[in-house]
Amino acid sequence: MQASPDSIPTALTPARRILMGPGPSDVDDAVLSAMARPTLGHLDPEFLTVMDELRGMLRSVFQTKNELTMPMSGTGSAGMETCMVNLLEPGDKALIGVNGVFGTRMAEVARRAGADVTEVKGEWGRAFTKEQLAAAATHDAYDLVAVVHAETSTGVLQPVPPVRELADELGALFMIDCVTSLAGHAVKIDEWRVDAAYSGTQKCLSCPPGLSPVTFSERAVEKMRRRKRPVQSWYLDLSLIQGYWGEERSYHHTAPINMLYALHEALRLVLVEGLEARFERHARNTDTLRAGLIELGLEPRVSGDERLNPLTTVAIPDGVDDGKVRGRLLKNFGLEIGGGLGPMKGNTWRIGLMGSGSTMRNAALCLAGLRDALAAQG
Amino acid sequence: MQASPDSIPTALTPARRILMGPGPSDVDDAVLSAMARPTLGHLDPEFLTVMDELRGMLRSVFQTKNELTMPMSGTGSAGMETCMVNLLEPGDKALIGVNGVFGTRMAEVARRAGADVTEVKGEWGRAFTKEQLAAAATHDAYDLVAVVHAETSTGVLQPVPPVRELADELGALFMIDCVTSLAGHAVKIDEWRVDAAYSGTQKCLSCPPGLSPVTFSERAVEKMRRRKRPVQSWYLDLSLIQGYWGEERSYHHTAPINMLYALHEALRLVLVEGLEARFERHARNTDTLRAGLIELGLEPRVSGDERLNPLTTVAIPDGVDDGKVRGRLLKNFGLEIGGGLGPMKGNTWRIGLMGSGSTMRNAALCLAGLRDALAAQG
Repeated sequence: MQASPDSIPTALTPARRILMGPGPSDVDDAVLSAMARPTLGHLDPEFLTVMDELRGMLRSVFQTKNELTMPMSGTGSAGMETCMVNLLEPGDKALIGVNGVFGTRMAEVARRAGADVTEVKGEWGRAFTKEQLAAAATHDAYDLVAVVHAETSTGVLQPVPPVRELADELGALFMIDCVTSLAGHAVKIDEWRVDAAYSGTQKCLSCPPGLSPVTFSERAVEKMRRRKRPVQSWYLDLSLIQGYWGEERSYHHTAPINMLYALHEALRLVLVEGLEARFERHARNTDTLRAGLIELGLEPRVSGDERLNPLTTVAIPDGVDDGKVRGRLLKNFGLEIGGGLGPMKGNTWRIGLMGSGSTMRNAALCLAGLRDALAAQG
Repeated sequence: MQASPDSIPTALTPARRILMGPGPSDVDDAVLSAMARPTLGHLDPEFLTVMDELRGMLRSVFQTKNELTMPMSGTGSAGMETCMVNLLEPGDKALIGVNGVFGTRMAEVARRAGADVTEVKGEWGRAFTKEQLAAAATHDAYDLVAVVHAETSTGVLQPVPPVRELADELGALFMIDCVTSLAGHAVKIDEWRVDAAYSGTQKCLSCPPGLSPVTFSERAVEKMRRRKRPVQSWYLDLSLIQGYWGEERSYHHTAPINMLYALHEALRLVLVEGLEARFERHARNTDTLRAGLIELGLEPRVSGDERLNPLTTVAIPDGVDDGKVRGRLLKNFGLEIGGGLGPMKGNTWRIGLMGSGSTMRNAALCLAGLRDALAAQG
């Protein structure tokens, strides 16, 4: 059973790519270095300080005063599931906007939590209006209304305040997916009165994947307190996890220490740059990218007023081979862009300018690479 | 809402501790360096090779040929929940040995998956006999029998083959928790005919916390295939996750790339040392530690034949202040040992010699530190 020594793989020497897909995005060297600092125990007083600082910085980035704000020990989808399984009990009514892969996923996760889900089918590549969502409601009242703020499959940014209005009219808590928007667009949790939100570390925070920042309003916490049944997931049960991130410091699971170092440094870099400056940078570089794509004859899938700055989707021209173009970009330029998902598979590229990867240099390089690859398709 | 620049925390400079608690354990510099390599995309051909190598090495360490062997994107408790929610459907009968915190947790997680759980209450600090477990069975047949191979709360190593025999008699699948045993004791998945096992990275693999290696037999996979209802957790649904780790490479969630780099290197170091040599080292250094503890008047909680080599538990002598001793070790020696959990809180220390931290030097340092701290209590 013992592996013979000559069957042991060699140590990794991964290439240094330029990651311009839908995430993970490129990670700053400072973040990689922070992650490689020596591991502390998860109850070490020094580490408890790291946790407190991290929560404070997360609140700044989420623009909230919510006490229950912290990173979950899993990727963005674990954050989505955290929100659903803690807020929903079997039979609860949820109205969910589905205009892409991540809306579809929210509906599926809510159903697995036992909820009575009303899916609002929207057009892929368009945001929802309040009227569209309202028209699809089949009940007078809902427990939860949820939409994706930044649809990573289509590149659409969903306006939030109108959906909050609808949630108020339906008496519902209000949840958003801001995996690809957090730190790339304004996410105003308190001003917008969002009750639950989750994000990921590997998009505009420019941190490796592995954690999911979440935040919950006092109304959401109150709904959790009134639960009749335990949360179906023990690992994601916030009533237990709060005990570790809160004052008690009671053991729940061993926190992913080094990933939390990385997030600490990534959040620091966001705040040192400043949120407004960061949002403006994302907008500016995407202006350049979109203009260049149009020049190359590549049509953006999303109109300018609904576009997501961190992620641009374009239609692949007829006769152009998706795999060959992306393969050539990777081989000749060390540059990764993303393919499409679901109905957009094979006909759409997803090009990310996220976090520290949103630069003039990357926009220009991607355009140069696409020009070369499209010419080679001849 | 913008944080003012002077409220941003400074960059982290965590102390270099010697981690001799119940985990996380000390991480080799080679593993920390691997983790800090540039992030690849989760569908990059180079990364797919990393995944395949990683699965091969995991099979060697688990001593199995199981196809369904991989790390889950969460800590050890996520691995526990993965096993439970995929193998159990509501109403399934589970017989679970409970002689510590992690057996208690298994029973709780199984109940949340809707199972009809028979808890076998055992003595904390003792292993189960087959007869004890058999006597507690209230049904003629079970769907699952589960025990903790290495009880991290008590320091007990559970003999596995007798429990497999019982599972056969009850017609049940057989699951073990080997969070603290994998790579520190033999874990013979195939020889012992274990159907499901989960571990953690932050114990004898000497990798930071954040991943949970799991493995499933063909019988377990068959039970999953026959499920009538979807797995309640979307994030941990193996029928979906297999699509990414298997041939199809279909997107499920974004893998925690850099954590997987770390695990790749940690597994390499295990195989380069060799499993038998590694187990022998763990045994030898714990012999030294136990002998020294007894010399200091500290009584091990577990007898020699049931002891867990990676983790030694000792009774705190009457009149000795738990917190003061551990605080002094941390302050004067940069050395972390663990306190007790549950009924062992305040009366037990847990001392780890795990993975690359199982050295003569650490055993000697810990004994010197305890001698100093106990004298200061005197």
